[in-house]
Amino acid sequence: MSTEGGIVMRTSTVFTARYAETDQMGIVHHSNYPIWFEAGRTDFLKKAGVSNTSIEAKGVLLPLYEMNCRFISPAKYEDEIVVETRIKTLSCVRISFSYQVFNASNNKPIATGETLHAWTDKTLKPLNAEKKIPEVYSALYKEFKNINGGNVL
Amino acid sequence: MSTEGGIVMRTSTVFTARYAETDQMGIVHHSNYPIWFEAGRTDFLKKAGVSNTSIEAKGVLLPLYEMNCRFISPAKYEDEIVVETRIKTLSCVRISFSYQVFNASNNKPIATGETLHAWTDKTLKPLNAEKKIPEVYSALYKEFKNINGGNVL
Amino acid sequence: MSTEGGIVMRTSTVFTARYAETDQMGIVHHSNYPIWFEAGRTDFLKKAGVSNTSIEAKGVLLPLYEMNCRFISPAKYEDEIVVETRIKTLSCVRISFSYQVFNASNNKPIATGETLHAWTDKTLKPLNAEKKIPEVYSALYKEFKNINGGNVL
Amino acid sequence: MSTEGGIVMRTSTVFTARYAETDQMGIVHHSNYPIWFEAGRTDFLKKAGVSNTSIEAKGVLLPLYEMNCRFISPAKYEDEIVVETRIKTLSCVRISFSYQVFNASNNKPIATGETLHAWTDKTLKPLNAEKKIPEVYSALYKEFKNINGGNVL
Repeated sequence: MSTEGGIVMRTSTVFTARYAETDQMGIVHHSNYPIWFEAGRTDFLKKAGVSNTSIEAKGVLLPLYEMNCRFISPAKYEDEIVVETRIKTLSCVRISFSYQVFNASNNKPIATGETLHAWTDKTLKPLNAEKKIPEVYSALYKEFKNINGGNVL
Repeated sequence: MSTEGGIVMRTSTVFTARYAETDQMGIVHHSNYPIWFEAGRTDFLKKAGVSNTSIEAKGVLLPLYEMNCRFISPAKYEDEIVVETRIKTLSCVRISFSYQVFNASNNKPIATGETLHAWTDKTLKPLNAEKKIPEVYSALYKEFKNINGGNVL
Repeated sequence: MSTEGGIVMRTSTVFTARYAETDQMGIVHHSNYPIWFEAGRTDFLKKAGVSNTSIEAKGVLLPLYEMNCRFISPAKYEDEIVVETRIKTLSCVRISFSYQVFNASNNKPIATGETLHAWTDKTLKPLNAEKKIPEVYSALYKEFKNINGGNVL
Repeated sequence: MSTEGGIVMRTSTVFTARYAETDQMGIVHHSNYPIWFEAGRTDFLKKAGVSNTSIEAKGVLLPLYEMNCRFISPAKYEDEIVVETRIKTLSCVRISFSYQVFNASNNKPIATGETLHAWTDKTLKPLNAEKKIPEVYSALYKEFKNINGGNVL
């Protein structure tokens, strides 16, 4: 049931780099990229019809167990930032997202990354998303199947 | 030349509350409000035609010497937030902004605040903005005068 | 029952300014001061024998309703920072703290501030701390009375 | 000249998890780990006699080009945190650090990670650290050689 490599859909989330996000190198500090990825992920889930707030309201959390970032070109204060988000892998126990960060004005790549999450209950104990929140799981899975032509790995 | 009480213009800046901004009370942590105010201030200056990036490019900084926040109702993850920003006071050595934060979906007030800034050079030494960056100063001042009917305090 | 002006005790909390806390002015961004105040407050409550974690375990939260900061001299990366914390006012419905931030190496003042908090339950509804958590309240109150000579305002 | 796998020295940096670092899952938000790694790296360089502040004063920066984190067990508010830091690889153009994060009270592992950095000038252009700051480079390299028995890869 894992869908390694499957593309469900791709969302673009746009916002402005904040002054507080800069550091004394004059660029956006690297610790903000996980937050930007998260803004992309929030938007992705909302557009997929299964907002993270609604998932949490059903008692399900998505804590990270791994995160990777590659920094290509620094973002600067007031840059218009685009985060492109897609599901990278999906299974009933785990989900991962990948992100591409661009400068909106010139499409220059800024960073890429992945976050790997477990489906858990409120006490952070793993659960089976397909059983616990089938409507969420099938919304994500169906989207994937439609686009990926059923070529589920 | 001080303009205490003068209203130059009012801008509305909209964004989504981030997961990273929440704390274990389940609400947006109070330390994010200064960052939200700053997002409003960035947008205000840009819409006034004198972006903070362009001001800094002229060698002028706007460090804070005071900041006040009042928290009315907590913001939550995924709330659509509006920050309304206006200049509160303007002089050749100082400028202050006031902010009203609302929930975009129901116009419920969330917080208010002020930030008080000095005009300084890159070494944080005070300078006279009217002399150093007259085009920026007059852009802000003219806008004020137009709306405030010349009733400069 | 309010103790406006009373000094319970004063704690000193020491840490190093982080790179991520700087901004492109080359100084610690102002949004970090509320977080530094909070580190001082956490330490104060712990040293008073009523850690914030233990207070929350009893179902009581301390959300802010107001916060003020005055910035005197910028903090820089790697500066050793001291936050001195004391209770400013205490009542059964509210508590406020005041903070003085110094550079540990030269005692130069960096910033001062206050945070004003309500005692609430987990749903952020106000409660009476003297009734709900009498042992916490009396620990804070007794400390105050001892030092302030009973001159409770 | 690369020292892949070499261990220069290992430093332990201790601090308390902050309230602002928690999120609505009730755990430390993952975006804080890069900041904790950085606190460890700052301490490592200082203890190696080549503080990051002194490196930057010589016109050399250490921007990241990659970052990886694995989350083992969540950190909570008020936890005493230890970050163990060591150099993972060192060359005249790049340096990487690895980190192990523990709970100080029970030695339970919390997270691990790596950050990969380029040696650059103030404009973020790569430079040769061995030539530009030989005293910094040799301080880091000598320490490595002493401990690693000259077994440089």
